[in-house]
Amino acid sequence: MNPNDGFRELDREECLRLLERAPIGRVVHTRHALPAVLPVNFCLDIDSAVLMRTSADSELAAAIDGVVIAFEADEVDATAHSGWSVVVTGRATVVTDPVEHGRLTRIGPRSWVASPKEVFIRIEPELVTGRQLVAGRTVYGVDLSS
Amino acid sequence: MNPNDGFRELDREECLRLLERAPIGRVVHTRHALPAVLPVNFCLDIDSAVLMRTSADSELAAAIDGVVIAFEADEVDATAHSGWSVVVTGRATVVTDPVEHGRLTRIGPRSWVASPKEVFIRIEPELVTGRQLVAGRTVYGVDLSS
Repeated sequence: MNPNDGFRELDREECLRLLERAPIGRVVHTRHALPAVLPVNFCLDIDSAVLMRTSADSELAAAIDGVVIAFEADEVDATAHSGWSVVVTGRATVVTDPVEHGRLTRIGPRSWVASPKEVFIRIEPELVTGRQLVAGRTVYGVDLSS
Repeated sequence: MNPNDGFRELDREECLRLLERAPIGRVVHTRHALPAVLPVNFCLDIDSAVLMRTSADSELAAAIDGVVIAFEADEVDATAHSGWSVVVTGRATVVTDPVEHGRLTRIGPRSWVASPKEVFIRIEPELVTGRQLVAGRTVYGVDLSS
């Protein structure tokens, strides 16, 4: 990242703090050899892994189990031209251990859409990167868009 | 998409109407063999191609020129458990034709961060897909998260 390009690189701790307050993120993976993006609700595990919950027979669970994927969350103010974006890259795993499933039932995210059998998916926080838009209108008080 | 999974598939026209009102989307591509996601402001061209504007020497322009990528926009209400997501998949091209550059300077998106030399990137709307969350709390009046 270029220090003059209007973005500030965020360190891992900053990224995780921002993720903690984001209700929605996007799973990015490959589907039929094309990039696929799906918004999901999520939360962070105590080791900062990303936790999602979905139907056991969902296409998503089958597509990403055991695969390195990206998970992105952001918050962008289109009026103020400010915001941030964080990407977690790591292996996704469907949780099959019953004890672990029980723990995640207590602390994990809730489903928005009920399904008879649900599973948790963990994304290991192997690589956590982020950037903040700092050269927007808000920071310098100048409308750079005109 | 399963009609019972809480999502409704959106047709191309519905997707394009939603994109027209979204100020922000996310470019999804591959970077160093890993998935990369970057929020950007955008608008639609008259033929519904996605238009972005960036620095001519940006990493993004070099990474996606001539490559099939995904572009995603969404609007999700985490309280109401409702929302939509649209993905445009198609080839991205840096616009090099001066006449076309001039046209896009008039109708294209504005930069949030000024740079000395800017280019426009078009993403052809080859595949436009979307879904709407219809089984959330708002629609049925039942809090499915509890």
